[in-house]
Amino acid sequence: MNYYIGIDIGATNTKLGIVNSNGTILKEKYFNSKAHPPKKLLKKLSQEINRVKKNYELEGIGIGVAGPTNPKEGKVYHFINLPGWENIEITNLIKNETGIDTYLDNDTNIMSLGEKEFGAGKDFKNFICLTLGTGVGGSLVLNNKIYRGSKYVAGEIGHVPININGPNCNCGGKGCLERYVGNKYIIERTKSQLKEESNSIIMKLADGNKENITPKIISKAYYLGDKLAKEIWLDTGKYIGIALTGTINLLNPEAIIIGGGVAEAGNVLFDSIYSTIQKRAMRLHKQDIKVLKTQLGEKAGIIGASVLAQGLREV
Amino acid sequence: MNYYIGIDIGATNTKLGIVNSNGTILKEKYFNSKAHPPKKLLKKLSQEINRVKKNYELEGIGIGVAGPTNPKEGKVYHFINLPGWENIEITNLIKNETGIDTYLDNDTNIMSLGEKEFGAGKDFKNFICLTLGTGVGGSLVLNNKIYRGSKYVAGEIGHVPININGPNCNCGGKGCLERYVGNKYIIERTKSQLKEESNSIIMKLADGNKENITPKIISKAYYLGDKLAKEIWLDTGKYIGIALTGTINLLNPEAIIIGGGVAEAGNVLFDSIYSTIQKRAMRLHKQDIKVLKTQLGEKAGIIGASVLAQGLREV
Repeated sequence: MNYYIGIDIGATNTKLGIVNSNGTILKEKYFNSKAHPPKKLLKKLSQEINRVKKNYELEGIGIGVAGPTNPKEGKVYHFINLPGWENIEITNLIKNETGIDTYLDNDTNIMSLGEKEFGAGKDFKNFICLTLGTGVGGSLVLNNKIYRGSKYVAGEIGHVPININGPNCNCGGKGCLERYVGNKYIIERTKSQLKEESNSIIMKLADGNKENITPKIISKAYYLGDKLAKEIWLDTGKYIGIALTGTINLLNPEAIIIGGGVAEAGNVLFDSIYSTIQKRAMRLHKQDIKVLKTQLGEKAGIIGASVLAQGLREV
Repeated sequence: MNYYIGIDIGATNTKLGIVNSNGTILKEKYFNSKAHPPKKLLKKLSQEINRVKKNYELEGIGIGVAGPTNPKEGKVYHFINLPGWENIEITNLIKNETGIDTYLDNDTNIMSLGEKEFGAGKDFKNFICLTLGTGVGGSLVLNNKIYRGSKYVAGEIGHVPININGPNCNCGGKGCLERYVGNKYIIERTKSQLKEESNSIIMKLADGNKENITPKIISKAYYLGDKLAKEIWLDTGKYIGIALTGTINLLNPEAIIIGGGVAEAGNVLFDSIYSTIQKRAMRLHKQDIKVLKTQLGEKAGIIGASVLAQGLREV
């Protein structure tokens, strides 16, 4: 049995885990990402690894971060929602302190690696991972490997346009998928469709204040039978299904694996995505296509990073 | 120097060429694709190859066809615009007659192989080929290899939706790129924007009859200063640029290589595609992106097939 360190640096928490070659997490430790400047946090992580090293023969360290990276240089360009992490050479800093080979990638690729090795992606040669949250992230596994693109920024399904004349997106584009199904746009859409005098369950769950509405509340309201909530999830699924239709016609994958907070809406959302694909994608492409939920869930970060710790394949 | 046979079976003509390992065509012979049933045509091609064999030591045979194929089994599923070619095991038939290793792929992948080895794609690890004609075809070169997908049907850029509520497409989808920029839709758009009393140069070139309008005529009219023709090409470029924006954000390629009849519209079209990408794609993705015309043009079929003749890489 080999042992690896998997690290998941998020905008709020940093999680460090000892993971064996079966993908089982033996121990976990949490750090506050915001409490330390980058180099200080990396020093603390290194100290923890040096402690672990006394009891485990470590084969490698893998790190996932919530921002665009250069995996070849082991550098993060910047962090989404965490200032101070501009152009930090993470792997060098950790390797120098610990003497152990260290690898870095963005969190969506890390999730794909975890799902590919130990989760919902095990049986597929080609699949697409999608994370639905504040932003919409994506990652591509093609011919059994992460496909990263020329500048390591491939996979931006959130910024596939689905509407020529759609609203402006933060990325500079128009009518991008994220502009319809990012958290805040789902909430916006819900608010604008709620009539003032509405007796929607959504408003009750939000204590009568529209500003309290979250995707979680819309999801709860759906399970309590709310009509508008159902409509919101059906529409959300339709938007996602249309962007995936283009992606499926282009890449002919075997499966789509979906995670992130919004995915918690469950069957109503997944069924809508699936039926949109069945209505719109090409015959051979949609035949046998699977739309699946992540299996590793919150553990995907640490477990996927431990897979990366086995070495970068083709960058 | 090694010698290969490259064959390009189109709906009208079948071209057979002797190509050396520098990609130079030494000799070409044309056959009428419609004059013979499939097995008869393949027999004639085999006879020709057996004749060539007397003067050249042939290392392999590559064949491109205008329809979906299974390159692993060397089979074409069907032909676009050529009936009778359902599920024909082309490579077996040719190999049995000639004794030479034979490989098959669809014509867009063949074009990519040619451009990658001897044309506009030489310097790129990741690029996308697009053919603009009656249909809109696509092919993906990722990590220096053709990416074919799970059922060998990847690359359908023509069926990437760009408009949620767009018109129905033949493929079963809605608002697909092809539905805006396939030959007949460019013509339809032109007709509907021509006023009856129009003194557009387009109408003059079409001898006063709207039914005579072709992309070639619209292109000619543009070069003669016609305003509507310019608008048609700018719009066509915008539609293509939007579909490519999604593809670029997803795949982060270094270049887009465009061929096919419609590409003959030239700079007005290419500039519109490029400026749409620059307006809409993500920052890192659009930086340094190249939008290029094919270099091999009509020879891409034979030359690309000769590259395939060197063997299938990863299917």
